[in-house]
Amino acid sequence: MKDVGILVLGHGSSLPYNRELVESLAKMISKNHPGPVRTAYLNMNHPNIQEGLESFAGAKVNKVVALPLFLAHGVHTRQDIPRELGVDEQKRRGRVLIGGDEVEVVCAEPLGVDECIAALACKRAEEAIR
Amino acid sequence: MKDVGILVLGHGSSLPYNRELVESLAKMISKNHPGPVRTAYLNMNHPNIQEGLESFAGAKVNKVVALPLFLAHGVHTRQDIPRELGVDEQKRRGRVLIGGDEVEVVCAEPLGVDECIAALACKRAEEAIR
Repeated sequence: MKDVGILVLGHGSSLPYNRELVESLAKMISKNHPGPVRTAYLNMNHPNIQEGLESFAGAKVNKVVALPLFLAHGVHTRQDIPRELGVDEQKRRGRVLIGGDEVEVVCAEPLGVDECIAALACKRAEEAIR
Repeated sequence: MKDVGILVLGHGSSLPYNRELVESLAKMISKNHPGPVRTAYLNMNHPNIQEGLESFAGAKVNKVVALPLFLAHGVHTRQDIPRELGVDEQKRRGRVLIGGDEVEVVCAEPLGVDECIAALACKRAEEAIR
């Protein structure tokens, strides 16, 4: 797994909160992943996705997982992210040149429906009425 | 807590996935909450936020928690949602007429940084390289 990079993808925002969330979660993810973990943003923030891919140059990875910190699929995950990564929109994977080396790039699924998200949402509701 | 309604808020999308996620999570949330749980969307889908508020008419709630299924604060949670709810943007709460009755509406925080989100993201990364 040391030769697998993870590119954590955020939506980006004109406010600082999306970046703060993405950077904090990327730090948590890097504790569980032996390979390099980088961040990139679809809109407004930098590094953008192209810059995020290039950040793996020299990192000796043969695969990069593009990991969208999005709750659900949508136009961003189905079209924009594969297009920005330069991979096939249907397969959501492909081979991309990074620092002159061909690297396999694979899009992960968004977070999706999970009991832990529902439990976290319930916690936020309880906090709001305390 | 039976007199507290939860209005689960999604971003909305031209694709069906955001709605599917919001409806599934709202069902999970309703298992843990004795009061009425409804859904609404900021963009593109219905019920919109105004329709979502009105759906509590006759439900005998004295408070509604607007619970955004958003990962982080941004323009949507800071400005758009309070504005659509008709509450103060700074306090993110206020009193709103629903079915002729004055009801307190309180915005909950977004999901935010949590180890469970990082763990779920790691799971999605592992699935992508299997």
